Amino acid sequence: MLAEIITIGDELLIGQVVDTNSAFIAKQLNKIGVSIYQITSIQDDKAHILKALSDAEKRVDIIICTGGLGPTKDDITKKTIAQYFNDILVKDESVLQNIETIWKQHVRTELLQVNKDQALIPSKSKPLMNKLGTAPGMWLEKGDKVFISLPGVPYEMEALIEYQVIPQLKDKYNCPFILHKTLLVYGIGESALAARIESWEDALPKHIKLAYLPNLGKMRLRLSTKGFDEAKLRQEVQDQIDKVIPLIKEEYAGLEDEDGSVEVVIAKQLTKVARTLAIAESCTGGAVAERFTSHSGASAFFKGGIVTYATESKTNILKVTKADIEAHSVVSAQVAEAMAKNAQQLFQSDYAIATTGNAGPTKGDSDAEVGTVFIAIATKTGVYSEVFNFGNSRIKVINKAVNKALEMLLKEIFKN
Amino acid sequence: MLAEIITIGDELLIGQVVDTNSAFIAKQLNKIGVSIYQITSIQDDKAHILKALSDAEKRVDIIICTGGLGPTKDDITKKTIAQYFNDILVKDESVLQNIETIWKQHVRTELLQVNKDQALIPSKSKPLMNKLGTAPGMWLEKGDKVFISLPGVPYEMEALIEYQVIPQLKDKYNCPFILHKTLLVYGIGESALAARIESWEDALPKHIKLAYLPNLGKMRLRLSTKGFDEAKLRQEVQDQIDKVIPLIKEEYAGLEDEDGSVEVVIAKQLTKVARTLAIAESCTGGAVAERFTSHSGASAFFKGGIVTYATESKTNILKVTKADIEAHSVVSAQVAEAMAKNAQQLFQSDYAIATTGNAGPTKGDSDAEVGTVFIAIATKTGVYSEVFNFGNSRIKVINKAVNKALEMLLKEIFKN
Repeated sequence: MLAEIITIGDELLIGQVVDTNSAFIAKQLNKIGVSIYQITSIQDDKAHILKALSDAEKRVDIIICTGGLGPTKDDITKKTIAQYFNDILVKDESVLQNIETIWKQHVRTELLQVNKDQALIPSKSKPLMNKLGTAPGMWLEKGDKVFISLPGVPYEMEALIEYQVIPQLKDKYNCPFILHKTLLVYGIGESALAARIESWEDALPKHIKLAYLPNLGKMRLRLSTKGFDEAKLRQEVQDQIDKVIPLIKEEYAGLEDEDGSVEVVIAKQLTKVARTLAIAESCTGGAVAERFTSHSGASAFFKGGIVTYATESKTNILKVTKADIEAHSVVSAQVAEAMAKNAQQLFQSDYAIATTGNAGPTKGDSDAEVGTVFIAIATKTGVYSEVFNFGNSRIKVINKAVNKALEMLLKEIFKN
Repeated sequence: MLAEIITIGDELLIGQVVDTNSAFIAKQLNKIGVSIYQITSIQDDKAHILKALSDAEKRVDIIICTGGLGPTKDDITKKTIAQYFNDILVKDESVLQNIETIWKQHVRTELLQVNKDQALIPSKSKPLMNKLGTAPGMWLEKGDKVFISLPGVPYEMEALIEYQVIPQLKDKYNCPFILHKTLLVYGIGESALAARIESWEDALPKHIKLAYLPNLGKMRLRLSTKGFDEAKLRQEVQDQIDKVIPLIKEEYAGLEDEDGSVEVVIAKQLTKVARTLAIAESCTGGAVAERFTSHSGASAFFKGGIVTYATESKTNILKVTKADIEAHSVVSAQVAEAMAKNAQQLFQSDYAIATTGNAGPTKGDSDAEVGTVFIAIATKTGVYSEVFNFGNSRIKVINKAVNKALEMLLKEIFKN
């Protein structure tokens, strides 16, 4: 079963908005055995939408559009879909009722005709009720092809996918099981890794696909397969994982969570062993804390964090000594380690991570080269740090530092 | 001048990676007058790449591909492009030299044949030298169409776009000037806003396009135009902005920075008036701090932040009184305001923002409903807070709280 995602909106094509909807939809559809053949982002333009729909209809079984369903004049998706189906828009009473309910609960201003008009949908469509907004989703069929139109506002789209689209697709199709397993590998480059595991890779069964995903100091190695016998596929992939791990014993850091990433692996382990974490950040500016707290359940292990951006915050609040700063500068092993130890004490945690560095583009309160970052880990038995140079792009330095800090912590907690 | 971006990689189609490359490329090309007609994400599959290239060639003048240029077996873009051009791969000495230089500087392991093979490029192509990685970019021409292939690793791609692609496209084409101006509007829904500015919108000149971009509690209103007379276009758009602002006086919060967003507007203003900021976060977990520190120049105004995730961190470090917590719970106006005031004092800042709430999915150390968030702003003259309910999706609650906190601060700093 193949699907295409069509995201509609000029904001995507001028780079004002990053398309996060497609990745969400792709992940959810994958779980029920629907593969995404292509993602196409197009303009709010009638001719372009019509062309994209007819092209997609030739390629795939399921077409999912997002965007362009708002009440204002620049939103033309609904009318264009009606035209594609030689259809007219008719008022749907259940959608109108939903709009009126939402309005009463959340909006203080008057319900306008343009909002009532959001209850107009193609007569051949079935509405997908949007409990979080006034734009309904729509489900249409043409022969054996399914067309689904969803609003572009991420949380409205997400709820419609989860509670309406997925259950209805599962009802309609007998989908294969799709399995992805991703190994987290650190401290080895793509080509060296490929050389190391070459004979294993060459011996992989044809229906198990391998991909290398390098990203800023970490590497993900993904095995993918699909079929109808879930138990057998799981076993086959597990067998391959068991074979490859001994080849990358030093560099292998665990399996990425099926829904998550390295911070989820850390969170699960810390929760399991009932250990806690605190974070002291300078150059990463809250990004390490944010990685943990964006997932639910963080309060089980995360005591808190401190972003000591100004040097005086490091001395006043984290009690890093002025002597250390004068002798070694704020970007130094001594300061990183003091930050980690003092954060551990301040928050009364088992572990603490600290980062201090210069993310650039210009030098700050230290002479350290742009890109220099010290990362320290405090444990119950001591503290240690490492120094890195992550280059001279600010975003890259921050992201690499976050990834490296998570890697160091991951290795530490699985060591004990 | 029209372009299409083709992003290649199974990781995009299974939702493992969000395509951020396209938005970056679109934004940069827009600045030199190249419009993106479509963005297409496809699989690492020869037939699919060939089809996407030939489809794009019919639609646009410039085709930019990213991804699939690594040294490993799953990367097939280069071979496929050679096939599309009926070409063979030949060794480029300048690329090989670049690979050897990078290897010497950054890699401790041996240079392998697969890495040397990255110097193989189609004989008809001109290499675009990648100083940050071993995969070169490539520039090919076919009649009056340009094909550009870039690695998918974001920072390598970004540097190639900035230093190679943009200058060479500017040399080749006489591009029009493209202008986007975005007004930040808060506290009014899409349809109410549209009704309010209807007569202004209807009277807009045909060559100025209007778009509504609602997103989690904020609204962006974008005016776009293009042409060859930059000064005239700027004046025309400015005239329209001057006309619409009086219609949305209460809700208008400023112009979005051409390259940035609301936190950039705040950063510029705080830096200009030499005021400083501190942040105390509970439910937003570092996300507010991260929004500011991801941009360079944050150290000019940002003193630091604290993430008091555990209740005991609020009392021990931020000195919120146990009496306040017992009387009102950790999710309350009293605690939010105490957090803001005490963070202001702790970091010795002019302003402070504080958030405390329940992002869900389950209730934490408070009986407050999931989605309840208190946001407080401390200024030199006092402190105040507001309460919100942002629904029951964790990511949505966090993002809405961050946006609302920035909105409150924006209004505050422009008030004084």
